Amino acid sequence: LAGSEFELIDRFFRRASRRDDVVLGIGDDAAVLRVPPQRELVVALDTLNEGVHFLPQTAPSDVGHKALAVNLSDLAAMGAEPAWLTLSLSIPRYDEQWLAAFADGLFSLADRYGMALVGGDTTRGPLSVSVQVQGFVEPGSVLRRSGAKPGEAVMVSGSLGDAALALRQLKSGAAADKALLARLNRPEPRVELGRRLAALASAAIDVSDGLLADLGHVLQASGCGARLQLDSLPRSASFAACSESDAWDLQLAGGDDYELCFTVEPSRIAKVEAAAAGLGVAVTRIGEIEAAPGIRCVTANGALYEPSLRGWDHFG
Amino acid sequence: LAGSEFELIDRFFRRASRRDDVVLGIGDDAAVLRVPPQRELVVALDTLNEGVHFLPQTAPSDVGHKALAVNLSDLAAMGAEPAWLTLSLSIPRYDEQWLAAFADGLFSLADRYGMALVGGDTTRGPLSVSVQVQGFVEPGSVLRRSGAKPGEAVMVSGSLGDAALALRQLKSGAAADKALLARLNRPEPRVELGRRLAALASAAIDVSDGLLADLGHVLQASGCGARLQLDSLPRSASFAACSESDAWDLQLAGGDDYELCFTVEPSRIAKVEAAAAGLGVAVTRIGEIEAAPGIRCVTANGALYEPSLRGWDHFG
Repeated sequence: LAGSEFELIDRFFRRASRRDDVVLGIGDDAAVLRVPPQRELVVALDTLNEGVHFLPQTAPSDVGHKALAVNLSDLAAMGAEPAWLTLSLSIPRYDEQWLAAFADGLFSLADRYGMALVGGDTTRGPLSVSVQVQGFVEPGSVLRRSGAKPGEAVMVSGSLGDAALALRQLKSGAAADKALLARLNRPEPRVELGRRLAALASAAIDVSDGLLADLGHVLQASGCGARLQLDSLPRSASFAACSESDAWDLQLAGGDDYELCFTVEPSRIAKVEAAAAGLGVAVTRIGEIEAAPGIRCVTANGALYEPSLRGWDHFG
Repeated sequence: LAGSEFELIDRFFRRASRRDDVVLGIGDDAAVLRVPPQRELVVALDTLNEGVHFLPQTAPSDVGHKALAVNLSDLAAMGAEPAWLTLSLSIPRYDEQWLAAFADGLFSLADRYGMALVGGDTTRGPLSVSVQVQGFVEPGSVLRRSGAKPGEAVMVSGSLGDAALALRQLKSGAAADKALLARLNRPEPRVELGRRLAALASAAIDVSDGLLADLGHVLQASGCGARLQLDSLPRSASFAACSESDAWDLQLAGGDDYELCFTVEPSRIAKVEAAAAGLGVAVTRIGEIEAAPGIRCVTANGALYEPSLRGWDHFG
């Protein structure tokens, strides 16, 4: 029975709970959890399939990290405090080394946020990792996509385009730049920034499908449009050093950034910048919300630029 | 954009919420939910992979029904009231007919319990359906696996072995009995019974991997053993009519039953039977909890029987 599902769960995924809001964790038909009084529950779910969302050669610890990170990025975009996660893991075969490294990547990130894995399902099948995270917000304080208003600044955390450029380098067979590769495989969810933004920003989303696609969701939900200053799109040193001819397109539509894109009333920009500086996270003003629908990308000399890509879509 | 992920979600999975505890449903980075005061949250997650948990020829409406039913069966085993679900759906291609039928099977069952689909992820990949359900229990009233005590009756709802026999018929290429096939493809979660048992039973589990395996979990968690009367294992009319030579093994280890197996103090058996009768659900006393570990299966003449199968295990 060395490779049974139950032994597997016990060995790699069952740990003593560190949270007193976990009444019953892994090991029964379901978990029993206690939401704190005066808090609403925030639930996000993202699935990563091998060959679709990550390359087959991706290190298992990176898969574990990223599967949780992309979900924490959703909680961040809501301004929520992370609490619990569940895991559905389909694996083609029992592979101790793979499982140990995967669990290490997952729990290293979970521990940083004091999260407990409270349940899951481990099945045989093509490699697929589905993580669901739950967190808390104070009633009425959640950051929605629908709150953007004309005149507000469009801002973004960190830098854009790094993961897309790393993926391009990998696919070309070249050695990928290490800093860019880390952005692809071990994205850093902006959880603390999101919680600070809950009281400051008007609307927020995390950039997973590409800036144009994700900002587009904010604009659609808010019933307005935006003008983006292309020269303002933040670039990492590694990204800038590569000087790709289509750098703007990578930044606008490459995706997998897991940065927060948010809108802020001009009077609050200084507060946002101070909060971000306190967390050591860069934030950059990249444009303005306008009444007219659509996204207008503008170069330094004021010319309109038409991107050649529109962002990631699974079934497009 | 006719086949985009967003259009797909809008068309097949986004519906007006019918629950006032859904603050924010599908369409933002995460759902926002309100747990009622004085209730604990119960969370279960089960994944069905094509070719592993269901045959490739299974009708999509049955896949939709079963993906939710197996999760509701876990809530039932906890004595919880269903509330919300999330869905991670991986599909190899955009197939309108398949999606419409799948959604119909899923929502038909969800509607019977007044559940809301509050979020999910739709990705490209080998067909895999992962559903997570959330429900409520009153603090302290959850049905655990660990409460069984020597002297208690072991009881089971409905009948055992039907789904395993249907699967055998399908795999043999014969026409499967319709009633048995319905048990395989459209299991009925015992939600109402579970809620009534919360105040009456000492321990409970749902039978998904087979009676021996699942009762074994109860016994391990409770630190005791059991004696089962093989002639008491409940059989449906269709199952009895097939008179398989290894009928006991199918009932003990076939799995996919989604019945509740629970233990009851003798003084409460009449109340359990009355509650079940009121719901139109059969319950049968099939054995007793004993102090000695292990499960002893006993024939009508008192002889010990050694089953040739031990139940479903993904990695065994």
